[in-house]
Amino acid sequence: MNAEDIKGFFAERGQLDMADYLELEYYLECVGDIEVALAHFCSEQSTAQWSRIGIDEDFRSLYGAKVIEWEVLEELPRLSYPVEQAMQGKIHACKVRIAHPHRNFGTKLPNLLTAVCGEGTFFTPGVPLVKLLDIIFPDNYLAAFDGPRFGIDGIREQLDVYNRPIFFGVVKPNIGLEPSHFAEIAYESWLGGLDIAKDDEMLADVEWSTMAERSGLLGKARLKAEETTGERKGYLANITDEVDRLREQHDLAVSNGANALLVNAMPVGLSAVRMLARHTKVPLIGHFPFIAPFSRLEKFGIHTRVITKLQRLAGLDAIIMPGFGNRMMTEEDEVRQNVNECLCDMGNIKRALPVPGGSDSALTLESVYRKVGGVDFGFVPGRGIFGHPMGPRAGAMSIRQAWEAIERDIPLEAYAEKHPELQAMLEK
Amino acid sequence: MNAEDIKGFFAERGQLDMADYLELEYYLECVGDIEVALAHFCSEQSTAQWSRIGIDEDFRSLYGAKVIEWEVLEELPRLSYPVEQAMQGKIHACKVRIAHPHRNFGTKLPNLLTAVCGEGTFFTPGVPLVKLLDIIFPDNYLAAFDGPRFGIDGIREQLDVYNRPIFFGVVKPNIGLEPSHFAEIAYESWLGGLDIAKDDEMLADVEWSTMAERSGLLGKARLKAEETTGERKGYLANITDEVDRLREQHDLAVSNGANALLVNAMPVGLSAVRMLARHTKVPLIGHFPFIAPFSRLEKFGIHTRVITKLQRLAGLDAIIMPGFGNRMMTEEDEVRQNVNECLCDMGNIKRALPVPGGSDSALTLESVYRKVGGVDFGFVPGRGIFGHPMGPRAGAMSIRQAWEAIERDIPLEAYAEKHPELQAMLEK
Repeated sequence: MNAEDIKGFFAERGQLDMADYLELEYYLECVGDIEVALAHFCSEQSTAQWSRIGIDEDFRSLYGAKVIEWEVLEELPRLSYPVEQAMQGKIHACKVRIAHPHRNFGTKLPNLLTAVCGEGTFFTPGVPLVKLLDIIFPDNYLAAFDGPRFGIDGIREQLDVYNRPIFFGVVKPNIGLEPSHFAEIAYESWLGGLDIAKDDEMLADVEWSTMAERSGLLGKARLKAEETTGERKGYLANITDEVDRLREQHDLAVSNGANALLVNAMPVGLSAVRMLARHTKVPLIGHFPFIAPFSRLEKFGIHTRVITKLQRLAGLDAIIMPGFGNRMMTEEDEVRQNVNECLCDMGNIKRALPVPGGSDSALTLESVYRKVGGVDFGFVPGRGIFGHPMGPRAGAMSIRQAWEAIERDIPLEAYAEKHPELQAMLEK
Repeated sequence: MNAEDIKGFFAERGQLDMADYLELEYYLECVGDIEVALAHFCSEQSTAQWSRIGIDEDFRSLYGAKVIEWEVLEELPRLSYPVEQAMQGKIHACKVRIAHPHRNFGTKLPNLLTAVCGEGTFFTPGVPLVKLLDIIFPDNYLAAFDGPRFGIDGIREQLDVYNRPIFFGVVKPNIGLEPSHFAEIAYESWLGGLDIAKDDEMLADVEWSTMAERSGLLGKARLKAEETTGERKGYLANITDEVDRLREQHDLAVSNGANALLVNAMPVGLSAVRMLARHTKVPLIGHFPFIAPFSRLEKFGIHTRVITKLQRLAGLDAIIMPGFGNRMMTEEDEVRQNVNECLCDMGNIKRALPVPGGSDSALTLESVYRKVGGVDFGFVPGRGIFGHPMGPRAGAMSIRQAWEAIERDIPLEAYAEKHPELQAMLEK
């Protein structure tokens, strides 16, 4: 590219009608001339060759991605992570904001991903390290999406639970338990005070625990638990499956009495989630396998915030995400950002329930509550309930007791003195 | 976990019926006691709690993932990439082979991904850095998959091209060109000798170039090119779209005369590819957006070999992948492994055509051919054809001329003397 070519990939924000563009924020490590690298970066993710040979035309004004802001963060002695690459020269860490015309791909999630984190983005000469940090959508783009059908308000209404977190529990043993035993311990946990008993994200429709049998038994157990307790209860069935089986798995589970459905968003694909969100009769909850492999490192890949935003856009009513505490290998600020992506204003798109999770129990509830800074979250222990020394009912009770202690502003230890289920967790 | 608990996650290969297991190879960086970390690693990706409280049972024998081989590669002064994590102790780089019972998830790609690179795998205490290096499938597992419907032999038969590589070309300008102009230059490239003119992976069904209009024009142009040249020609239409539109996009494009279809495998999801492979009437070609973000770094994420293997299993007849040369930021050995994953024996699964790509032209053909070590590959220039100074027809001719030179064992420069299209590339 010559100097004139490079100019075509830079613009002032004020020159553009930002309703036509997504705003993309990237962290980049550039090798060699920075402006050349940034122009290539835009070119590769949009119109890589912007005219036919021998024809006087220029597709960049309408179709070119354009740098609208950039700053050099620092010069680096070497790439933050070693990568085989072709360029020579100084290395600079940069932050860049790009206006990418959404007419290039439209309001389709697979095509959006292809543009913003596809071949062009990750194979630009001179830009071996890339992290997509954020996508900002104009309202006219968001308007093409339905987002969550239920959202936080719909989930609360269904459960008739307000002014406190929603208490989920992952039934454990997660793998290997036959459906009748699974239903028994889920029932126990509902009686102890759980709102929603959930399948593990790894447990779906398998020979030794088919969706037909498991959801049938759980559906019945749920109704019995509702009768016994006088509270609404949820069974969250994991329908993660091949995409052409998702709708039938939905229909089967829901007709059997599952009143919320789990789907592993990235393994099935975001557009499969969107398809399911259009079809579903019950809240859809997303889980987070296959996100860490491209999001854990600070300076490469895709920020979890982007994936949370896309999951909400695709229509998940609740989003399970790596939670607080270094057990989950995610910085506190990143968890907060993901919680915020569920709750913040987003055009016409409803709020999704954030469910920050990972090795939780009665002992971590207050800390999660304080860090989230409100009651609009889901709390999702597994072994913290089903591994409770007094059993799953006591495990669920310990969670509700921990919440009572918070509500009444009583220290956990003090409250535990008259609540043996909570006491047992403290002693564990 | 106590010492007895740990033992339950280790086994001798000879003790297991390996037909019941996938064999997973991982690179791990472990913090603290290695055997404890490996036991947790297996537990987290399978039965995290292997008995109910108060019941004498053990799900590990049937459902536990088990270490069957492990070696310490070296002790490290620190993690290869800094990660927030909870453990303290010495750091060891390890290679481990795990037998993971496939009964836990069955022959479903989203559920397979959830198990082998999901939450358990990437959130094990003491194992902050993980790279999934390989998956070895037993034949009984492969038998549940159809794999490519056409494979290399089917593609060759369709084009009536044998004993040489298949010549693809990515029509450029890739974004912005209106369908009639797109058809014109594709036509030119077919006349120059291209086998398959292809949509860019970023160009799908958009308002300014709908699939209906583009595939209609290209279908007609393709037939005309076949008449003119007496050769079979291919138009590879990119039907990447929301999953619930894939089959209708297939039907539309094929009825209009597209005789091969492109799909971006990871953006739509591997199970959507599998769905499409069951439905398709023409060869399905996969492209590689959204793979580099989790595969580029040596010591974290998922190796591209795994994704190539899964794409073949899902049913892609040809797999476009980052090719040779450090322009594509992929080590030569890794490209070779990916080529080999397309070609090697794999139970009942047909061979897929490997298409290593990236900034190719007449000048790189020989080198790619030598590195692949045979004619069973696709060659896919973009600007190398459509940016040729004499135009796309000359661009395509230059590729065929380069192949003639190789066949006749004549140096490119010598052959170019009487072939101005090739000469123009040498001078460029």
